[in-house]
Amino acid sequence: MSLAVQKYGGSSVANAERILHVARRVAARRAEGTDLVVVVSAMGDTTDELIGLAQQVTTRPDDREMDLLLSTGEIISCTLLAMALRELGVPASSFTGAQAGIQTDQTHGRARILNVEPDRVRAALADGRVAIVAGFQGITAETDVTTLGRGGSDTTAVALAAALLADQCEIYTDVQGVYTCDPRLEPRARKLTTISYEEMLEMASQGARVMHPRAVELGALYGIPILVASSMVEAPGTLIQGSSEMEPSNKVRGISHDADIAKITVVGVPDKPGAVATLFTALGSANLTADTIVQNANVTGSATDVTFTVPDADLQKALAAIAPAVGRLGCAVVTDASLGKVSIVGTGVLNTPGYAPRMFQVLADTGINIELITTSEIRITCIVTRNRLADAVRALHAAFELESA
Amino acid sequence: MSLAVQKYGGSSVANAERILHVARRVAARRAEGTDLVVVVSAMGDTTDELIGLAQQVTTRPDDREMDLLLSTGEIISCTLLAMALRELGVPASSFTGAQAGIQTDQTHGRARILNVEPDRVRAALADGRVAIVAGFQGITAETDVTTLGRGGSDTTAVALAAALLADQCEIYTDVQGVYTCDPRLEPRARKLTTISYEEMLEMASQGARVMHPRAVELGALYGIPILVASSMVEAPGTLIQGSSEMEPSNKVRGISHDADIAKITVVGVPDKPGAVATLFTALGSANLTADTIVQNANVTGSATDVTFTVPDADLQKALAAIAPAVGRLGCAVVTDASLGKVSIVGTGVLNTPGYAPRMFQVLADTGINIELITTSEIRITCIVTRNRLADAVRALHAAFELESA
Repeated sequence: MSLAVQKYGGSSVANAERILHVARRVAARRAEGTDLVVVVSAMGDTTDELIGLAQQVTTRPDDREMDLLLSTGEIISCTLLAMALRELGVPASSFTGAQAGIQTDQTHGRARILNVEPDRVRAALADGRVAIVAGFQGITAETDVTTLGRGGSDTTAVALAAALLADQCEIYTDVQGVYTCDPRLEPRARKLTTISYEEMLEMASQGARVMHPRAVELGALYGIPILVASSMVEAPGTLIQGSSEMEPSNKVRGISHDADIAKITVVGVPDKPGAVATLFTALGSANLTADTIVQNANVTGSATDVTFTVPDADLQKALAAIAPAVGRLGCAVVTDASLGKVSIVGTGVLNTPGYAPRMFQVLADTGINIELITTSEIRITCIVTRNRLADAVRALHAAFELESA
Repeated sequence: MSLAVQKYGGSSVANAERILHVARRVAARRAEGTDLVVVVSAMGDTTDELIGLAQQVTTRPDDREMDLLLSTGEIISCTLLAMALRELGVPASSFTGAQAGIQTDQTHGRARILNVEPDRVRAALADGRVAIVAGFQGITAETDVTTLGRGGSDTTAVALAAALLADQCEIYTDVQGVYTCDPRLEPRARKLTTISYEEMLEMASQGARVMHPRAVELGALYGIPILVASSMVEAPGTLIQGSSEMEPSNKVRGISHDADIAKITVVGVPDKPGAVATLFTALGSANLTADTIVQNANVTGSATDVTFTVPDADLQKALAAIAPAVGRLGCAVVTDASLGKVSIVGTGVLNTPGYAPRMFQVLADTGINIELITTSEIRITCIVTRNRLADAVRALHAAFELESA
């Protein structure tokens, strides 16, 4: 018997009616002869409502308390789905993250899974039941409840699929799959049939919000095929797997973008060992990570400029974190909070001559200035002004002929 | 340093404002130099809302799933109270029933506490923190979440007080203490300064909804003084303890009543060993307990009548439970769902001549017929028609001169 781990996001279980819809889907799939583990997010706006409650009693919620509070959202949805399945005559049991053996470190708010010991989930499957697991949460060795941060339920699903040696992990969401670019920006965007882990990772890291990069990473690490599809529409989704069916004549697979970028430039960093490290150590201590980092070549003398980007929402927190180091180093700070980034993603993009200059030329022809450039093996990213970001996506989608397979 | 376990009920933590009020109370008490463990119920109508959600997806919610669902209500309120305390500068940590070491049996919906191992609560106290514990819930040896049934948070509080060797357990609620009878029925009702465990137990069992009998039992067993007081009004409450300050001239301490009584009479039960047992075994298997049981003396021949009472809400469930046994025994069943009961409670009431006849006479003088009579060492209870119950309470309160101490 094959085993699949399914994950349903918050909008798929937003109310009783949708939970019943998911239950019918799960029941139908199980009737076809597949053992199922189902990971669920919190219902609709539950998480925001819980955060709102916390904000009514405190200005600075403690991370540990917040995690325990938020964990209730997924427990509620998973018990309701289990009840809905039983109502349909399908044996089902719900499990908290702790009960499902999701063991994490103690980094509240963005905990890392250290180990998965799904003994109770295995027992439920062996007993012929569907196991419903609360996503987004785990437990530390000290039995503190943690949450896994953004995209946490995806990570729960893939981690369980790996631990249970599942045949496939299926992420059901409010989009129908992975597109060549955001269909809301460009109606001609095309749904991809398959994509490689690496390409998906770059798409995800660079702003395509279909799946969280950590979940894709985990899938790649354990070789779990991940299907991304709609929970509402019966349509084939996108399969993320080891190797994509490459179009030989076009190495760009998709355009991703992220409108939530702020840039911090630290001016006059002393050109001596350790100076840059102190900046990023300070950032790391505040649990922030810089996205793009660029250090200009030091051609003028004893000081250099370091530029990095963070999500807009983290800008003030980042500035506060580096302030002591900046003061000690005697540097100045310049920020720009109105940026976005656009990337072309595809295996071999960087190593195939022509793609980088073509991208830059397309942006130039569209009258868009490039603020920063970064690259990986399979991605070229340009930071541009936010109010031209959509134009950049559309221009690149057309130029690289992504609307036709 | 003294240690108190406090419990705040659902109306005391109904919204953010009330949670902040409770936090200020806890902070003030701690500033006086008392170590505190605070047990909280779910906010206001949260439990009913969760039950409502379940009813939207199933007609017959599974007990295990329901317990896990309901347990989230108390987790939410306890994390919010911990956050509110931290906002006031008071170190505080919240704990689920499982984290607080509330170990129970597997009777979902009305689990019994088997053991309390509050290591984490002790560590929090040793660390100078206030420990906030989610009431009403525990965990089985198999790590399934259970709920303790009606009055469960009271039971959590007293059990923790016993395990932690606390000096006192304080139950804060929406009433100011234990009264000689329900002040809503009789404005001349008087708040008692002290009451013995046994008297409180009889008052509680017979319908005074101030505290759940199981919590009082536990307090008696471990000799934990229990203060019942208002969370909203600063006024002395009622102390439940080993021996009450008895008024020498009046042994009746209070009048309790319960308007939610249904009577079931099984007519023509064969007068042979085991016949009655089958009825109550069937009832017990459905997790129901009969309150009052009366078997008429068999004077006419080979069959007898057995009458018992259950809460009105359980009537249909009780009838369904005994139906097979009733069928096998060849009996008929007669029910009356419109009853209530009224009790006089006080140490020695039954053993002091005069109280029983005086009670019956008062009811007769008020024109109220007595349907059933039961007694304990310190209580005399009459089942009467529900629409005269308030009259019965008022008449007895006056006759036993309870308005004056």
